[in-house]
Amino acid sequence: MGTDILRCDAVAIFEAGLKAVDPVNTVKKKLKREGDIVTLEGREYKLGDYKNIYVIGMGKAAASMASAIEDILGERVTTGIVNVKYGHSVALKIIKVNEAGHPVPDESGLGGTKEIVGLLEKSGIDDLVICLISGGGSALLPLPAGDITLHDKQELTTALLHCGATIHEINAIRKQISRVKGGRLARLAYPSTVLSLILSDVIGDNLDVIASGPMVPDTHSFHDCLEIINKYGFKEEAHRAVIQHIEKGCLGDHEETPKPDDPVFERTQNVIIGSNITAVKAAREKALDLGYNSMILSTYIHGETEEVAKVHTAIAEEILSSGNPLEKPACIISGGETTVTIEGKGKGGRNQEFVLAAAIHIEGLKDVLILSAGTDGTDGPTDAAGATADGTTVARAHDLGLDPYAYLCDNDSYSFFKPLGDLLITGPTNTNVMDLRVLLVS
Amino acid sequence: MGTDILRCDAVAIFEAGLKAVDPVNTVKKKLKREGDIVTLEGREYKLGDYKNIYVIGMGKAAASMASAIEDILGERVTTGIVNVKYGHSVALKIIKVNEAGHPVPDESGLGGTKEIVGLLEKSGIDDLVICLISGGGSALLPLPAGDITLHDKQELTTALLHCGATIHEINAIRKQISRVKGGRLARLAYPSTVLSLILSDVIGDNLDVIASGPMVPDTHSFHDCLEIINKYGFKEEAHRAVIQHIEKGCLGDHEETPKPDDPVFERTQNVIIGSNITAVKAAREKALDLGYNSMILSTYIHGETEEVAKVHTAIAEEILSSGNPLEKPACIISGGETTVTIEGKGKGGRNQEFVLAAAIHIEGLKDVLILSAGTDGTDGPTDAAGATADGTTVARAHDLGLDPYAYLCDNDSYSFFKPLGDLLITGPTNTNVMDLRVLLVS
Repeated sequence: MGTDILRCDAVAIFEAGLKAVDPVNTVKKKLKREGDIVTLEGREYKLGDYKNIYVIGMGKAAASMASAIEDILGERVTTGIVNVKYGHSVALKIIKVNEAGHPVPDESGLGGTKEIVGLLEKSGIDDLVICLISGGGSALLPLPAGDITLHDKQELTTALLHCGATIHEINAIRKQISRVKGGRLARLAYPSTVLSLILSDVIGDNLDVIASGPMVPDTHSFHDCLEIINKYGFKEEAHRAVIQHIEKGCLGDHEETPKPDDPVFERTQNVIIGSNITAVKAAREKALDLGYNSMILSTYIHGETEEVAKVHTAIAEEILSSGNPLEKPACIISGGETTVTIEGKGKGGRNQEFVLAAAIHIEGLKDVLILSAGTDGTDGPTDAAGATADGTTVARAHDLGLDPYAYLCDNDSYSFFKPLGDLLITGPTNTNVMDLRVLLVS
Repeated sequence: MGTDILRCDAVAIFEAGLKAVDPVNTVKKKLKREGDIVTLEGREYKLGDYKNIYVIGMGKAAASMASAIEDILGERVTTGIVNVKYGHSVALKIIKVNEAGHPVPDESGLGGTKEIVGLLEKSGIDDLVICLISGGGSALLPLPAGDITLHDKQELTTALLHCGATIHEINAIRKQISRVKGGRLARLAYPSTVLSLILSDVIGDNLDVIASGPMVPDTHSFHDCLEIINKYGFKEEAHRAVIQHIEKGCLGDHEETPKPDDPVFERTQNVIIGSNITAVKAAREKALDLGYNSMILSTYIHGETEEVAKVHTAIAEEILSSGNPLEKPACIISGGETTVTIEGKGKGGRNQEFVLAAAIHIEGLKDVLILSAGTDGTDGPTDAAGATADGTTVARAHDLGLDPYAYLCDNDSYSFFKPLGDLLITGPTNTNVMDLRVLLVS
């Protein structure tokens, strides 16, 4: 019984976090309108100053964010288009929603991006562009430069990942071989005024990382990209188009991404309207309301899921043993995003695997429950957002003939939790600020 | 300059932790004497009731603990012998110190253990036995049963580890094939009165795990051990002596380890006089004194060093970014013991590797410093206890031509920190309560 209450509390805490990063709520909280004046983080914009208001967007939450813009600006929106992941549409009055491929970009994404570029090309100094960026925005804004194809780009990314390139190196190249990333979208929009509203899905909320920074300056050059290419010894025919583009860029044949001092950013305001910390703080408030001593551990959590789970359960054990870092009833909340090194053939996601690893370590402990779930409602290639586990999980699994350790080794967390009834299923939430983890000790 | 102060503070916090688990201090704090009465956690013992007082001990801190006993009981000590690791002797008046091999047991350990057994065999109902147990106590109390050799035991342990046996399974077997572990020492001491003073070096402070529980009941039988042997398919000639011993045990030819209801424990009091939490709590007090908002994260920390380091640095980033879980200046203290999966050929230990991994993640951060060190003063096969790192470490390393990532991959943390001058060298501390980690953000 005690644990049932814990599970309900953990789910309520998670849902409070979700609600705080609901795209409609966050847009309306940050972008305020009073009559003809729109305010974004202290800066005022007079709607009467603008001939046209164009709305563009890319990412899982783009359609929901766009619906908030329609609510706020109504008929003042001239036209617009947003690229969202398949299944993430919302009915809109003026702005067009274009569903496209994610995480692998497709032709539909390409088409939508071309429409966005078309809109920006016709926008001018008298126009206002509202850009709605959210998680998945990089794959949902594909437009390779020159004669590079989506396939070329994909192949190079895969090859770079294989040879140990860092995500920063890969992003540097992505920006230079794109027509829209790395601030190039801002250049297309210039000299319009641009309000860029961003739901962050990356640790640290760096503007140049989220969706590959379409509206912010880039700090890398074609020469940097060539160095990266050379560092990893790419000479293969397979990457000919990309390498040639970069080499020509070094010779001045292609335009560089705009740098921090570029005037194209003069009329651009980028604002993060929601991120992991928004959700985590709201979750903490809910936990306090429910009577838990509550603590935010970190929103910067990364690393191998199984090992990160061990640190979380170690905190649960300390709470039980010495009342540190919090006295019971305690709630520890963390965010960020872990990784799973896949060695098995099972079905699962980083959140479900986190909970499975934790279940093994809290076996037999009373009044401890752990929840981990993705705020986008999707954990890996499953229909679950995550799962919950407590001290009875391992015993209940054994009763069903399930060996937790075997499922963990096979990365088969979904198949483990499904028969136990401990999956957390929310459906698509139309938002995405990475993961939330809730650890309760009562 | 700021960071130099941080380093001094971190070292002072670590040293405060060390002092709290100084073997002499901890023994004297727990074992109080007033005239003829000795008190241990509320239980009184009248020295006049005992004809002889024998002192035995095993572990890195045994000689220091014995010196405290000589201070407390003086001439009342009849005789005694303690097994310590080479280089861990302390000058004693009555009690003999026998140096022996650790972590690999040797003939000297065997000889000392036989002397301990000899003392216990001649002790009787009128005698008091004081047993001093500390980290390393299992390797420093070797006495295989029957005709099993140290080599046989070592081979089996290695083989069990290789085929994935858990530490609990290995310990179950260790106890059954020993003449002294798993409560067998208590049986040898019976019917003497036994005061067992324990400095814990294991996560969770389980009495049956520390030094393989020589003075506490065992819960596993010869049959359990046979099941483990069969589970992993051990049939090889190499393990003949061990397997035959267990098989004969199942037939009743050898005596079982004493179980929880065994009368041999009637006169035995086991008390943990110090453990990781003792050190961690003292470290936290020191941090508070120095003006830091301070928090104990957990003393149950385990898992792969590099990943655990990521969670610690993630907390540092959150403190800098949002003031959670503590406002600056903040000190996060954790204990326990991580593991390193060795893939390289370098020299280092889990603490130095932890700090190296952390250094990479805090690169460029201002006013962040991390320390990790073993309370025994030895980290891996090095002369360092651990190391410290801050946001400048990576840059300073590059200046010296050192690539932090390459050193991390080669498990070569000692060679990385030595030229930087960031090793923490204490020399042997004669105590051992696992590791301390101190994270400062100012």
